[in-house]
Amino acid sequence: MTYNLECPVTGYKGTDVVTKAHGGGGKEMQKLIKEMFTKAFPYLQSKYDAALLKISDPTQMVVTTDSFVLEQLTFPGGNIGSLSVHGTVNDLVMMGAKPLYMTVSFILEEGLPMRRLKLLVSLLARAAKKAGIKIVTGDTKVVECSHTNPGIYINTTGIGFEECTKKQVPHLNKISVGDKVIVSGDVARHGMAIMSVREGLELDTPIRSDSAHLCFMVDGLHKRKVFPAFMRDATRGGVATVFNEVARDSKIHIHIDEEKVPVDDDVRGLCEILGYDPLTVANEGRFILFVRPHQAQKVVEILRQFEGGEQATIIGEVVAEHKSGLVTAKTLLGFEKIIHMPAGELLPRIC
Amino acid sequence: MTYNLECPVTGYKGTDVVTKAHGGGGKEMQKLIKEMFTKAFPYLQSKYDAALLKISDPTQMVVTTDSFVLEQLTFPGGNIGSLSVHGTVNDLVMMGAKPLYMTVSFILEEGLPMRRLKLLVSLLARAAKKAGIKIVTGDTKVVECSHTNPGIYINTTGIGFEECTKKQVPHLNKISVGDKVIVSGDVARHGMAIMSVREGLELDTPIRSDSAHLCFMVDGLHKRKVFPAFMRDATRGGVATVFNEVARDSKIHIHIDEEKVPVDDDVRGLCEILGYDPLTVANEGRFILFVRPHQAQKVVEILRQFEGGEQATIIGEVVAEHKSGLVTAKTLLGFEKIIHMPAGELLPRIC
Repeated sequence: MTYNLECPVTGYKGTDVVTKAHGGGGKEMQKLIKEMFTKAFPYLQSKYDAALLKISDPTQMVVTTDSFVLEQLTFPGGNIGSLSVHGTVNDLVMMGAKPLYMTVSFILEEGLPMRRLKLLVSLLARAAKKAGIKIVTGDTKVVECSHTNPGIYINTTGIGFEECTKKQVPHLNKISVGDKVIVSGDVARHGMAIMSVREGLELDTPIRSDSAHLCFMVDGLHKRKVFPAFMRDATRGGVATVFNEVARDSKIHIHIDEEKVPVDDDVRGLCEILGYDPLTVANEGRFILFVRPHQAQKVVEILRQFEGGEQATIIGEVVAEHKSGLVTAKTLLGFEKIIHMPAGELLPRIC
Repeated sequence: MTYNLECPVTGYKGTDVVTKAHGGGGKEMQKLIKEMFTKAFPYLQSKYDAALLKISDPTQMVVTTDSFVLEQLTFPGGNIGSLSVHGTVNDLVMMGAKPLYMTVSFILEEGLPMRRLKLLVSLLARAAKKAGIKIVTGDTKVVECSHTNPGIYINTTGIGFEECTKKQVPHLNKISVGDKVIVSGDVARHGMAIMSVREGLELDTPIRSDSAHLCFMVDGLHKRKVFPAFMRDATRGGVATVFNEVARDSKIHIHIDEEKVPVDDDVRGLCEILGYDPLTVANEGRFILFVRPHQAQKVVEILRQFEGGEQATIIGEVVAEHKSGLVTAKTLLGFEKIIHMPAGELLPRIC
């Protein structure tokens, strides 16, 4: 397996590695911004410390922030640049908003090869363009590196405007007994893709992350006049965390048929070897939907028309109110069990 | 000198140090959010990955992002919590906007004493309240620590709405020949305050950082119908960086009378000992204003009524157009010199 490490940002002709001067606010930082960042991010308002944005007729704004601390710059199925963009965009989309603007802040460790930064910047720019979100302002800091492999931390903050009317906005309190629970695709890919790279596993077919933005799928639902009661992307902590958060915050009892949750055979195999429950493993392009029962089949059909949604499946339902936070499942062996909120280390530095 | 290390956040009763589980998306992270963050930040929409915000009749939005990587949690005159809030608020205020919403994202090193996090959270909450900005969403990641003193990186992103009309919004292209250059107070305090702590200097009177939000001062100007052509806070790289950025981007020649730039005697002394030019040292509560000559005296009088503005002074003027980027100064000894864009390491990890 090879990664395409080409870098379309060709402007910067400075030093080979990041130095503290690149974060000092002086000449070197100015050069970096002018020759690398402004070329990669066409909407960047680089002459100010903030971006001034025109907005028209909005009533509600959605804001989200995320830091990304993954050690691997690239992994099968994605890279930290696309991961950052997708993470931010998806948090907006899940709230029914149209992603519009994004900020990017880098914390760079001293000695980072400049070509790695260039590559990251290119990957970010490409993913932002694909998802239709504009990077408008940013910040760069450089810190000492006390180990041998200088890394990058990225923070992205996304701003979107609500496209749904108040009645249509997904909300925890709109979930009702009888609502069907749908997963948009097979689970546990992202966590296991990172894990297999980290453990140096030589798999015949590498497990690819599901990292993807969910704009098209949610837009597809809205265009067909489907507005789910609630949606959440199942990232850190996996779908088990989403079920537990929603059950707790909506004061409902969710029941899942574990057999129906799509899991790729290779992913399940690796989970078994490494001792992880696929329901608790991170995804980066899958989401859980709560929809009225009469719409459930239609939602599945719509989702399946999109890349990443081919395996959308009804996996459970809301069975009772006021059972504060209970999540149960019919297991693969036919027993009943409680799905608890995952605890402990899970998979660290997965995003 | 003692710092008040009390922590008003009393809710959290978990572990003593930060562990990877606190960034894993599972139970421990939920507990941290519920028992510490939501108590400290009353506007936090902690049940979603994004915040949904009502907005009314805005036409222009201002967005800014900053990461803070300072090693010291507190320093004379401030702390990393107030520094983060002030940095974000000031970037909005300098654009003529009213600061409204803020996101906070933590990257925590494993092993960080939980009481340090609690303290930081309290300091952030207090500074946000003082500056009138609402913390509405956030993110927490935990990373390995490869040294002995686990630290914290903070990213804050601020959103404000433009209060000025289009004619009143400060802008680089509004600066004209003859405009006076004003500094809002004495310079180089923040950089030297950090440096004296870092070097372990036992000064008779500790140098206090100028860290402060500039909302009141700018609001004071607006209330008196003064809308400067341009404003910029002089942070990393000091006032010399602001002069050079503005001269370059507005294609003007700025001339400064170095003698008029207020510098505290102790600050100047330390700069001389350590070999820094006060004009290139970071401030965190000082800004440079470009105003029409007939308004300059009025501006100084208004600024001097506010805490932090007592030493506001006219220090120079815009002397010519099309001298692309030239900054000159009459030095303390009466010579003429060019003030270059600072370069090199300056003071690393100062904010």
